[in-house]
Amino acid sequence: MAAALVAVDVGGTTIKAAQVTPDGGFLSRRTVSTPHDGSPVADAVAAVVSELRTPAMAGVGVGVPGVVDSGAGVVRFAANLGLRDVPLGPQLADLLRVPVAIEHDVRAACAAELRLGAGRRVEDVLCVVLGTGVAARSIVRGRLLDGSSGTAGELGHVCIDPVGEPCACGARGCVEVYASAAGVLRRYRAAGGDPALDTPGIVAALGADALADRVWAEAVAALAAGIAAAVLMTDPALVSLAGGLSGAGSALLGPLAVALQERLPWRPAPPVELSVLGADAGLLGSALAAADAAGWRERTRRWLPPGPQQP
Amino acid sequence: MAAALVAVDVGGTTIKAAQVTPDGGFLSRRTVSTPHDGSPVADAVAAVVSELRTPAMAGVGVGVPGVVDSGAGVVRFAANLGLRDVPLGPQLADLLRVPVAIEHDVRAACAAELRLGAGRRVEDVLCVVLGTGVAARSIVRGRLLDGSSGTAGELGHVCIDPVGEPCACGARGCVEVYASAAGVLRRYRAAGGDPALDTPGIVAALGADALADRVWAEAVAALAAGIAAAVLMTDPALVSLAGGLSGAGSALLGPLAVALQERLPWRPAPPVELSVLGADAGLLGSALAAADAAGWRERTRRWLPPGPQQP
Repeated sequence: MAAALVAVDVGGTTIKAAQVTPDGGFLSRRTVSTPHDGSPVADAVAAVVSELRTPAMAGVGVGVPGVVDSGAGVVRFAANLGLRDVPLGPQLADLLRVPVAIEHDVRAACAAELRLGAGRRVEDVLCVVLGTGVAARSIVRGRLLDGSSGTAGELGHVCIDPVGEPCACGARGCVEVYASAAGVLRRYRAAGGDPALDTPGIVAALGADALADRVWAEAVAALAAGIAAAVLMTDPALVSLAGGLSGAGSALLGPLAVALQERLPWRPAPPVELSVLGADAGLLGSALAAADAAGWRERTRRWLPPGPQQP
Repeated sequence: MAAALVAVDVGGTTIKAAQVTPDGGFLSRRTVSTPHDGSPVADAVAAVVSELRTPAMAGVGVGVPGVVDSGAGVVRFAANLGLRDVPLGPQLADLLRVPVAIEHDVRAACAAELRLGAGRRVEDVLCVVLGTGVAARSIVRGRLLDGSSGTAGELGHVCIDPVGEPCACGARGCVEVYASAAGVLRRYRAAGGDPALDTPGIVAALGADALADRVWAEAVAALAAGIAAAVLMTDPALVSLAGGLSGAGSALLGPLAVALQERLPWRPAPPVELSVLGADAGLLGSALAAADAAGWRERTRRWLPPGPQQP
């Protein structure tokens, strides 16, 4: 089936994009570096979409890490991208002449979890996205809990140690200082770890590299503490882990489930699963946003989720 | 207007009860000690209701701290009361020959906040009940967030210090170890404070008793940390404080708002208010449950909230 949508997931490090068929399959993909030299992110997104566009392109969806006004297609503030009040949606729509949806990246990923993943079988899910940062969103009674200002689910900034390491947010001991891909890498290197290893390399070294083991154990402990707080407040039936770092699989899942239960000694902890969306959660969220922009929301009900992740 | 309902709020220390008029006003009140000598709590509740009953009594509502099956009227587990699988609702209904509702005490208090308090003007509220323990429930889009097993809002057991003081729940550093009325009293006395003071006495001594000041500051800090975690996950437009300890008023409100903002350096903290329900939140919740049991749910829409609390 021909490509008809383009999905873009703008991260602090890379911009990932894919052609998407009308039934939700991914065709060609592209990954480019996110510009940090002052050149506009909008231009980089436009360039990658132009590469992937087909004559049949009916919609584009873009996920952005930051405060987004989806209705207006405006990125209000994205610290990691240096964007403030950028009308990315209208700019791209002008250039590309198709409907463009702009979404908060984690909200989009968790909407994908709701529409294609665990949300299809469970009404109350804590969706956790482990990427460069850590964020989450709750599905409550089959709907995303966005909050009064759209900023619910900031699991990455739940404090798990009041005298912990400083976070870029200005506070100390935030979950994502320890448990994000960036945090694991930074802490491993700062402690003298092998500078040739990236985060997946650190995960691959578990069991053979004591420093990797320690940094990973601290990441799991921090994540468990943050998830425990979220569970106490929202009582999900399931915790689902997506995003790149969820690729750690059983090295993450087993110790996390144990640590979560230890932190909830008086009640059963909810089960923790790897999301079937895996590292593509954000891109699938952008694909759904693109489909919605194209007027294909009903059609997405027939989209199939990707295959299960292997723990 | 004659009393037609009886509301009962069963606490770990006292059982509070009141006659309630059909328009939600309180008439006579009774407070008795919660039996801890092995005699059944149900008998104590029945005795106080019998004292308050009138020929016109149409319903009874009872709030209980513990896991409650409201549909069946069964207290599944209440550690502080020594109850397990007690069919309190059917027992009381048999004895009193009127409909009886059994509710989780904090859920009932937060339902009162939704129906009579802040929930009347704000859609997304974090309702915090500061009593012998600390608990909360979120109002999300005008509905209580109960969670998948009805245990959402356990703010009191959010961990704010992983190496903190042990909690009765089996974990360490829980919010309520520091910030509950019982926690404040226990910590003040353990540190050598005046044994003649109860928790309101400690609050009254603020500014004149350095130990009271320190214990109170730690209570406020713990509460702010727990509320910050809840705000990050659920993004309420307002935090409302009810329960007996909310009677501390400005000694609580001012420092708490400052501490909460300090813990959310990258976003505006939601405003914090004293609930108009005050220390009666639980009893009002039981009154609403009694009204519902009597078939008067519609009528409660016209109930007036109590007067505003003075900060």
